[in-house]
This record gives sequence, structure tokens and C-alpha cells, in this order.
Amino acid sequence: MRYIKLTIQYDGTNYSGWQIQQKEATIQGSLEEAVLSVTGERTRVTGAGRTDAGVHAFEQIAAFSTPSALRPEIILRALNANLPEAIRIIGAEECPESFHPRYSAKNKTYSYLISRPGAYSVFLQRYSWQRGYSLNIHSMKKAANCLTGEHDFTSFRASGCSSKHPVREIMDIQISDHKSIGFLSFMLSTPLIKISIRANAFLRHMARNIAGTLVDVGKGRTRSEDMKKILESKDRQAAGITAPARGLFLEKIEY
Amino acid sequence: MRYIKLTIQYDGTNYSGWQIQQKEATIQGSLEEAVLSVTGERTRVTGAGRTDAGVHAFEQIAAFSTPSALRPEIILRALNANLPEAIRIIGAEECPESFHPRYSAKNKTYSYLISRPGAYSVFLQRYSWQRGYSLNIHSMKKAANCLTGEHDFTSFRASGCSSKHPVREIMDIQISDHKSIGFLSFMLSTPLIKISIRANAFLRHMARNIAGTLVDVGKGRTRSEDMKKILESKDRQAAGITAPARGLFLEKIEY
Repeated sequence: MRYIKLTIQYDGTNYSGWQIQQKEATIQGSLEEAVLSVTGERTRVTGAGRTDAGVHAFEQIAAFSTPSALRPEIILRALNANLPEAIRIIGAEECPESFHPRYSAKNKTYSYLISRPGAYSVFLQRYSWQRGYSLNIHSMKKAANCLTGEHDFTSFRASGCSSKHPVREIMDIQISDHKSIGFLSFMLSTPLIKISIRANAFLRHMARNIAGTLVDVGKGRTRSEDMKKILESKDRQAAGITAPARGLFLEKIEY
Repeated sequence: MRYIKLTIQYDGTNYSGWQIQQKEATIQGSLEEAVLSVTGERTRVTGAGRTDAGVHAFEQIAAFSTPSALRPEIILRALNANLPEAIRIIGAEECPESFHPRYSAKNKTYSYLISRPGAYSVFLQRYSWQRGYSLNIHSMKKAANCLTGEHDFTSFRASGCSSKHPVREIMDIQISDHKSIGFLSFMLSTPLIKISIRANAFLRHMARNIAGTLVDVGKGRTRSEDMKKILESKDRQAAGITAPARGLFLEKIEY
């Protein structure tokens, strides 16, 4: 048996998330169908991050076992020929049996895009949360500071989260403000805010709940000093809304 | 009667082009429905450029007449509330009765995006022609030179074109090569080529036929010196294929 590690990019707009479901189109389901077409065997494709419905991936990592002797480059091309356009394999290589996309990961980075007032961009609507008001980046950065480190993130954990405990470690939160994005400005003229969160792992909706709460801070509805209280309250009601799935990207996984 | 000029942005992916049709979803049809909802009157919305099915607009201009006394800012917001997400009004103002979106235009710029080998980007697939090989930008620029000025563009005119004559004036063709596009590179990592054509007016498929022929030059299938012969042959068969609609944007209209 050989083990193949895949790097996958996808536009999650029209999918019910990563995890396979009986009646809905999912990323995992589409990948398993493609593997079946290419290798003739039905096998489990295990992913690193179980992205929600509508969430995108710049770099998702997955792996599967196969008796096939096809070279990884051939597998890459054959899978792409059998996948819908919104899902692309951008890397394929052999890996040891001991490699597990999720358990072997040191950390993951999720990034959230918010487009700001100014020229509306229809070309970003699938890929960002468009807000009709200015956000104070300085306050958002101040508020984000207290989230780094190891904490109980119950305040940012969705009901129905299947994790055994609510403690996670955030290594880094970067909030960046971009007034212009160069030559593509003709296509994407809206100023953007990007919130990048690197953590050992994420609870259900954690990235989106943090983004929603930071937006409340940015618009002055919540004071940046209150972020610490929200975190310590361990109360989901104390934090802000769950930011929409369309703005979230699984950006990178480090091993 | 008042006259309202609209600036419109749209993602043309799921539309059968600008021009209203009985059974298909079109941009003009959607706008006329929205105007009916807002003003209570069915009226013609006249556009500057009749973009094809799948073609996008960064800035389309249109106008309509209305007995409504609503202020332009209110019309803008009300139309957006009644339009699908893929179509956004980004400007609205009163204009004189003599203003005609098409006939008053001095020139239009259409831009075509081609993504190059390297990391595939699913996030650009709706908005570019993804080619699996390198293109020689230098040859493409050389070939494009002979197209500027006033010419008979029959070689780049689609059958079924309704224009009275095939003579158009191209003021400018810019071909630019972009290895990186800054902070969004995490989302759009593919290097891009942008072909921008500014002309007094365009024949049917003219921009896409020029783009298709320039790609043939870029990949070495056609020599840059042959572009002049292709133009002078006045023969559609001499030129390259029609580049796919998804890469084309109506970028700007000058009055």
C-alpha cells in the first residue's frame, strides 16, 4: 500500500463543507469520487481541517492510501481531470504511513477577509464579508492581543462543537489593512482587512466568532479592553456574531 | 421626465449577457425588473456596451428615464436592494436627456485576464483564461503594435456581428505581466497577464478574438510579424480562436 499526500485548493461557495454527507455536495465526497475514478478503489480521503459550508481553502492538506502504482504527478493530473473546477489538486507526493493530515499538523492558519466601504466589488463578494462602515484597525489589533497564548476559547466556540476540550493555543493574530491591491485594483477596488489567526487547532466556528467579535470592536460597538472579559467569561453570548463563511480561508498548515 | 445615469458592476458568469432576452437571465433584464420594483414603471435601461454571455463589467454605464422624484442616492440603494448580488449599482446621477450611454461615449476599454502556469488559482477561474503554458509577452507586445490606429477589423469580427461597417479605431493596447499581486497573493497566487484595449467602439467578439490571436503569438504558434498580414487579410479564418468570455471585463467608458 502507498500513501499519497495531497495539497488542495477550493472555492467552497457551492459546497456543504469538507466533511462527506449523504445528500450534499462536499469537498471530501468529491475527492473520494475522483480517487475512485482514477484508482478504481473507494478509499477514505482524510483532511487536515474540516472546513464549514461555504469556507474556502488556499491550501488544505489531505491523504489517502492506495494500491495504485501511478506516479504522484500522474495522480495529480488525473484527479484534476475528474474534479469539478472549484476544486484543484495543487500538489501530490508520497508520504509515510505515519503521516496524518490532522494529527501531524503543528499549526494551522485561517484568514478572514473583510471588504470596506468604497467602491463595492462584486468580484470579492464570494470571498469576503462586505461591511458598509469603516472599522478602526487600531482598536481591533489592541483587542486581538489578549487572545494570543493558550486559553479556554469557550466564548468563541459554536454549540455542537465535537472537540473534547475548549483549550487552544493561538500563536499569532495579524490584522492588516490594505488600501490598494495593485494592478488588480480595476477588478477588486474595495479596500480590504485581513485577519490571520495561527493556532495549534481550532474549535468549531472559532475563527469566524473571533472575526465577528473583532468587527464589533472595529465599529466601536465593543471596547477593545472588553475582549479580555469576553474571553474570560467563557460565555458564547458575551462575544459577537459568527462572521459569514464566505470570508474565511484555510490558508496554510504547518507540519 | 428625469434621466438617470447608472454606473454598474457585474459578475457575468451566470448571465446570458447584457441584452434582454425572453427566457434567459440577462443584466439588462435584471435592471429593468429592479427599476420596475423601485419606480413602479416599466422602462428601457439603455447600456453603453452589450457584453456577451459570461463577460464581466467593472464599470458599465446605462441610463433610463423616469417620472420618479426619488434622489439618485435613494435610487442607487433601492435598486441594489432589488438586484441579485452579482449586479451592483456603484453610481447614480441625473443626466441630460441628450446623454446616450453608447452614442455619447468617446471610447471604451475592455481588459482581458490570462492566468499563467504556476500555482493554479481556483479563485481566478471565473475571471481569467487559465493557460497551461508560458507566454512570451515581448512577442505579444510587438504583435499588438500594428493593431493600433484606424483599421478594418474584419479578421477579428464574429459572424452575426450587427455593426454597419468593420472599421474601428484602437487608441491603445497595453499588455502587462504581473508576477505577484501583493497581499492577495495568498488568494490569487497565479501570475497574470492583462491585455487592455481602448477603442472608439468594438465589433462583436473583437476583444476576445484579438486576445485569442495574441495568445497564439505568445505561445509561438503565430509569429508577431504575421499579425499585420492577419489584419490585412480581412479573413476571420486567418486569426486565432475566440478567447473564453470569463476572462473579459468591460473596464471603463470615457465620455
